Amino acid sequence: MAERITPRSENYSDWYVDIVLKAQLADYSPVKGSMVIRPRGYALWEHIQRGLDDMFKATGHTNAYFPLLIPESFIHKEAEHVEGFAPELAVVTHGGGEKLEEPLVIRPTSETIIWSMYKKWIQSYRDLPLLINQWANVLRWEKRTRLFLRTTEFLWQEGHTAHETEREAREETLRMLEVYRTFAEDYMAMPVLTGVKTESEKFAGAINTYAIESLMQDRRALQAGTSHFLGQNFAKAFDVQFQTRESTLEHVWATSWGASTRLVGALIMTHSDDNGLIVPPRLAPTEVALIPIFRSKNKAEVLPRARALYDELRTEFRVELDDDENNSPGWKFAEWELRGVPVRVEMGPRDIENGQVTLARRDTGEKETVPTDQAAERIRTLLQEIQKNLFERARAFREENTHYPATYDEFTALFNGGANGFAVVPWDGDPATEAQVKTDTKATIRVLPFGNEDEAAGKQCIVSGKPAKHIAVFAKSY
Amino acid sequence: MAERITPRSENYSDWYVDIVLKAQLADYSPVKGSMVIRPRGYALWEHIQRGLDDMFKATGHTNAYFPLLIPESFIHKEAEHVEGFAPELAVVTHGGGEKLEEPLVIRPTSETIIWSMYKKWIQSYRDLPLLINQWANVLRWEKRTRLFLRTTEFLWQEGHTAHETEREAREETLRMLEVYRTFAEDYMAMPVLTGVKTESEKFAGAINTYAIESLMQDRRALQAGTSHFLGQNFAKAFDVQFQTRESTLEHVWATSWGASTRLVGALIMTHSDDNGLIVPPRLAPTEVALIPIFRSKNKAEVLPRARALYDELRTEFRVELDDDENNSPGWKFAEWELRGVPVRVEMGPRDIENGQVTLARRDTGEKETVPTDQAAERIRTLLQEIQKNLFERARAFREENTHYPATYDEFTALFNGGANGFAVVPWDGDPATEAQVKTDTKATIRVLPFGNEDEAAGKQCIVSGKPAKHIAVFAKSY
Repeated sequence: MAERITPRSENYSDWYVDIVLKAQLADYSPVKGSMVIRPRGYALWEHIQRGLDDMFKATGHTNAYFPLLIPESFIHKEAEHVEGFAPELAVVTHGGGEKLEEPLVIRPTSETIIWSMYKKWIQSYRDLPLLINQWANVLRWEKRTRLFLRTTEFLWQEGHTAHETEREAREETLRMLEVYRTFAEDYMAMPVLTGVKTESEKFAGAINTYAIESLMQDRRALQAGTSHFLGQNFAKAFDVQFQTRESTLEHVWATSWGASTRLVGALIMTHSDDNGLIVPPRLAPTEVALIPIFRSKNKAEVLPRARALYDELRTEFRVELDDDENNSPGWKFAEWELRGVPVRVEMGPRDIENGQVTLARRDTGEKETVPTDQAAERIRTLLQEIQKNLFERARAFREENTHYPATYDEFTALFNGGANGFAVVPWDGDPATEAQVKTDTKATIRVLPFGNEDEAAGKQCIVSGKPAKHIAVFAKSY
Repeated sequence: MAERITPRSENYSDWYVDIVLKAQLADYSPVKGSMVIRPRGYALWEHIQRGLDDMFKATGHTNAYFPLLIPESFIHKEAEHVEGFAPELAVVTHGGGEKLEEPLVIRPTSETIIWSMYKKWIQSYRDLPLLINQWANVLRWEKRTRLFLRTTEFLWQEGHTAHETEREAREETLRMLEVYRTFAEDYMAMPVLTGVKTESEKFAGAINTYAIESLMQDRRALQAGTSHFLGQNFAKAFDVQFQTRESTLEHVWATSWGASTRLVGALIMTHSDDNGLIVPPRLAPTEVALIPIFRSKNKAEVLPRARALYDELRTEFRVELDDDENNSPGWKFAEWELRGVPVRVEMGPRDIENGQVTLARRDTGEKETVPTDQAAERIRTLLQEIQKNLFERARAFREENTHYPATYDEFTALFNGGANGFAVVPWDGDPATEAQVKTDTKATIRVLPFGNEDEAAGKQCIVSGKPAKHIAVFAKSY
């Protein structure tokens, strides 16, 4: 911990990399664009996985696993899909010492291989709905990468569902968007906007893409999860028809939805500070760090008391006892702050004398003392308070940085002057207008919020002055 | 369930494939050698993962994630490693539309990429031991594949640990072998032999390979998990040295250990029968299937009682209520048998009249009736009995099929006459003798049991007649 973390005010991008490397969440690998997720980073991902997986299962989904390698011809079966993904593919040309007859691509996403299987499995409406999720690695060749946020290989989950009717598929799309919103807000303490993407920002092969969008501390937006209504596009590309209740044949309706290790990056950039990581309690691999404070002369007095408290706390919390004798208390405080552990418990000779412990909360740095026999009870409520405070703090930050400029000059000044944040403005719905904004400011439409068309009625596009069709949320994004 | 499962006596190999496909555990994919793990098969893998992962964490390991793609040159750094894996590699030559400067291989195992990172992370004895596990997909180009047992891509875990001393690394190797043995026997109800592999059967790059070996119902052996003592081979290949407690520089000592989706195949082939899958309770995604038996006239009487019992049982067991009205009770019995659910609960009008339910156990087919208010208690003990019985039955089978032939003629007759099983015999330790046995019988040495050298003293090799160095366990294997 002698090494300094670049302050956010100095260079946000360097700050982020410092946190990731110094908290040992991830590391650069010898393979360009691929990262190594170190144990502390992977523990965060495991908690994210567990939370999401429970929610997927509670909404009727089961997990399965499909091949990593996909025949190149499959990617070409859906016109928009190939256009979107072809430039990002990694291609296996040789296997077992021989050149392959048909090259195989490493999955950038699994719609094509999965729908080739759904063709075998779906014959009748009785086989529907089919609600499958996959936890897997995927690979998209990226020119510019950033740890967790954009890497050539990443870990994710991808849900792929098949339905009898358009209505059911649309309901599923929105149900899973709501799962992502709930997870982001209740587990990650990360407030998100929800809505639909414009044509230019949607998934290659989707009819509609919905997303959750969050505002990072540098006031740039991050897309943290997407849910796609795929219509009958993939069913048609792979000729997946089913016998309906009326004995007719119809193409199956589809959705897909995904969230990735990018969430770890979002977590870091939403809450952490210049002292290191801050992890919301519900996702914290360690909720409590217990640090006995002693020298050799009072070790025999302090350590047994600390161990007794540790044994009590571990029945309820994910707690670590740091009784290492090589490092000073000050070094340990800084280390556990760097790691983002929500609550630190300090227990020294004077605390023991007074029958108390000191609790320090990571989010605010505040300290308090409580009687040792009430420590567990107080920690329980403190963890809830921290979880809530992190969410409220992030929401207040987002609200402070959500703007409603009245003119296009005000709008461009926001992004070109460095204020950034979300800009919520009327838009004429024209892709050309959207493209012009991007040229002028680098900002893009993150979402069109639900119900935005009604709100747009009677308003004028902030760019073109034409009648507005939507209220759009613009931001510069990761 | 109208479809017939090939009886084991008719064709064991067809029986196995029938179980896998008809119980919907897996399916063939359009990619040669790769399989699709369907939800029911994946649920088994999830239970296996959970069980093993808990044991890894209880022994001090954490999970991490390393890149899928490895620079081809890395594989060449350890001489035996490249010799073993080069023929099985899949090679990525193009990415993002361009030819790569150096080809990348898809990991067949991760020693090389991981040790290239350990070089960055290990400087001092204070950084040791490093106890990391990875859950991942790997790929080995295979000419002949079998669902779950041998597939080009498979899912596994691979532990990679780094230690200060040879002794610690050797202890770790055996600790993890014992984790595998415990898991196989206590969770999978699959008795295993443990021991060391011969030079010809060991992992490419290891000093010693230890394995758990199980006997399948066709009396062929299956290697179900391996633990390798790697010595300083990979530390030397990647130049990973650490400062010792004595301030000298030394190469790090290493282990690696793995178990894969092959375990699902082992589970099937150890316990299942001609009616379908049999899953040991501890790994059963569904422990209890509750089947109400009713016609339209008594539906209103039976269903609410069944639902009440379901609500009671689900607080304690993984239970499914099959109240579908389209299928007959007989169809449902066969279906839940096919799926291998350990206990079936039947509840019909007469049961209700008598205040009882009927319990059927999957392992023996035995039925019994119990008062409904004692059902949960009886199911609890029944699940334990089934777990135990499956293990005992498999162990008895193994003992019946473990042979101690006195002459080489008896030995070859075992394997060439189709009896197969394990043959435990003195061996002179000569690779040429081992090779001759393979030529004569297709049998290989599965393990040299612990302490075998002492037992071999004074005995003669069954093949050469020379003084025996080992007692070896031979079998034909998967």
